[in-house]
Amino acid sequence: MKKEPYTFPLEEFVSKEDFNKIKKFSHDKETPFLIVDLQKIERSYDELVEHMRFAKIHYALKANPMDEVVLVLKNKGSNFDAATVYELDQLLRLGVEPERISYGNTIKKEKDIAYAYEKGVRLFVTDSESDLKKLARKAPGSRVFFRILTESEGADWPLSRKFGAHPDLIYQLILKTQKLGLEPYGLSFHVGSQQRDIGQWDNAISKCKYLYVAAAEKGIHLKMINLGGGFPAKYQAQAHDLETYAKEIRRFLLEDFGEKLPEIIIEPGRSMVADAGIIVSEVIMISKKARFNQYKWVYLDIGKFGGLIETLDECIKYPIFCDKKGCAEEVILAGPTCDSMDILYEHRKYSFPHTMKEGNRVYIFTTGAYTQSCSCVGFNGFPPLRSYLI
Amino acid sequence: MKKEPYTFPLEEFVSKEDFNKIKKFSHDKETPFLIVDLQKIERSYDELVEHMRFAKIHYALKANPMDEVVLVLKNKGSNFDAATVYELDQLLRLGVEPERISYGNTIKKEKDIAYAYEKGVRLFVTDSESDLKKLARKAPGSRVFFRILTESEGADWPLSRKFGAHPDLIYQLILKTQKLGLEPYGLSFHVGSQQRDIGQWDNAISKCKYLYVAAAEKGIHLKMINLGGGFPAKYQAQAHDLETYAKEIRRFLLEDFGEKLPEIIIEPGRSMVADAGIIVSEVIMISKKARFNQYKWVYLDIGKFGGLIETLDECIKYPIFCDKKGCAEEVILAGPTCDSMDILYEHRKYSFPHTMKEGNRVYIFTTGAYTQSCSCVGFNGFPPLRSYLI
Repeated sequence: MKKEPYTFPLEEFVSKEDFNKIKKFSHDKETPFLIVDLQKIERSYDELVEHMRFAKIHYALKANPMDEVVLVLKNKGSNFDAATVYELDQLLRLGVEPERISYGNTIKKEKDIAYAYEKGVRLFVTDSESDLKKLARKAPGSRVFFRILTESEGADWPLSRKFGAHPDLIYQLILKTQKLGLEPYGLSFHVGSQQRDIGQWDNAISKCKYLYVAAAEKGIHLKMINLGGGFPAKYQAQAHDLETYAKEIRRFLLEDFGEKLPEIIIEPGRSMVADAGIIVSEVIMISKKARFNQYKWVYLDIGKFGGLIETLDECIKYPIFCDKKGCAEEVILAGPTCDSMDILYEHRKYSFPHTMKEGNRVYIFTTGAYTQSCSCVGFNGFPPLRSYLI
Repeated sequence: MKKEPYTFPLEEFVSKEDFNKIKKFSHDKETPFLIVDLQKIERSYDELVEHMRFAKIHYALKANPMDEVVLVLKNKGSNFDAATVYELDQLLRLGVEPERISYGNTIKKEKDIAYAYEKGVRLFVTDSESDLKKLARKAPGSRVFFRILTESEGADWPLSRKFGAHPDLIYQLILKTQKLGLEPYGLSFHVGSQQRDIGQWDNAISKCKYLYVAAAEKGIHLKMINLGGGFPAKYQAQAHDLETYAKEIRRFLLEDFGEKLPEIIIEPGRSMVADAGIIVSEVIMISKKARFNQYKWVYLDIGKFGGLIETLDECIKYPIFCDKKGCAEEVILAGPTCDSMDILYEHRKYSFPHTMKEGNRVYIFTTGAYTQSCSCVGFNGFPPLRSYLI
């Protein structure tokens, strides 16, 4: 066993001052719970606006649908992307005007399209003839944008295959749209969530350019490109900063479209809210499986079913901090349920101080996205993840 | 494309009469939802009692924790296995006496042990020194059984690694137990959920015998073996019937322990309730990704986040029926959320009639276990899975 001291780059994730505040705020609360820092979300929004002035922001609600998060972004002037009529209802209830809402799921029931249209939504994504016809029937005159199938190479949480169609099929759909009484408005793609290879945007933007030109040759002038999300949050794996992403994506756009850019929409979800969340959890048990096991097992009171579903296949590697001193010791991390699938990290070894004890708390950073809303209603009787706003 | 007619062995899962009842009951209800047939659970219980008269049944609540399911089994005389204090609270609220409850999770907070003890629970599982000492402090005099680590080869949903310890370590724990003021009561193992290889029980029972003898040599006479669960439900993959399991397991026990069997406990979860559940879902969209795609994509209004989490890695292959006639056509099946992970079956191809249309209903059988309680609180805004009892 290596005897190096345990270290953790705490200040990459939270200032000392903020961390002390969080400890003070949370010390008397029963774990596990999520703390969401609304000011951090405001700062993320401001930063995104600053670096991507050429783009209109549609916050992808699904990343964190808490009312307070929506309200903060609404007041900042954000637009929104709703995945379902349930999210649409929430946005309307919170006073977001339908003009600020896009319906961004390619998988829609006809009655849900009708409902969204009735409520005033006029911007829809599509990727199939069947859906396009439903839009024609239930949302006449709406602006439609077409989702192109892209590869998600380089994304920690890939989004390929299920959404979008090949450019060739999309071209056919574009040609049909006007005749159906809809406005062929633009194109969209998604390079995959937590996409760490910026070049993937270049590939996708080139495909858009190709379709723009092909459609224009038929007299159809598309007006918009939706660059999707995929901008990274700060997990364990290295990623470039937002400024670099913004500069590069702008360069790709200029190369293909020149100074007169089409309307650009982005749909950030994870990158807007993930860094603002910290989950506080407790070590339930530390055990060995055999007398001379190489690794101890550390069981936390939160796992895959309680909000950390994105640890599936160890895709998302959350930074996890134990506020103790000692030698660094690699362990296997697991959740609290009676399900063997509920192991967090076994291949990627996490290090903690060898002094870590049962009852100690750990702080799981970058957990503001895809956690609370993904927790189960009651697996093993555990309640859904509690959350607090600060 | 093969032009064989679409077939589905409907009567393996539900009688024609019952299926008509279910269609009548459900036709005006908005999908998706789960229907749980309580009489079927009663029959499963009776069948289990009939075939395994040598065993005491502790229903593993986590498989389906609906109050009505618990009450039916309580009235039948079942005992229960609770995974958490939350499940314990539910059982007590429903009038189950603490003597009928085992605390079957090896991962326990000290305060939760104290709580269970205070409520009258006296039977606990353990697999580590740390947990054993917590039990000694907070549940003095209780009966303790030790979970042995087993391989889950042959299980559709493996449960290895995370729970149990090697027999050698368990032996050390057994020797310490009396000195700590606890009663070393028995051994347990779990061969993995939906275990289709009966021989796995033989391996595990042999390990128990070995430990029984070793403990007896030190004057410690264990009294119980908990065979866990793992008895299969009826999914797509073939499995033997319960009678065969029961006969074989009894034979393994007799071979190792002779006619004077120790007290035998079983913890069925899935096998008790899975067959009693049917999820009714609607086809939202059928689409192609390219002009000459080999497979259509069929999107249902339920997916991994809405209750079908066990389709992860396509582990559990639910039987899915579409009540239409036509040629069999293989498709890719996906769920309704904006997450690419939410694909149900892509490698294993499911066949449906080529006439299947958007808006048609499909019936997903054997969904009474690990569905409703595993649905997310609100991913993509979708509410948790609704359920009805019949």
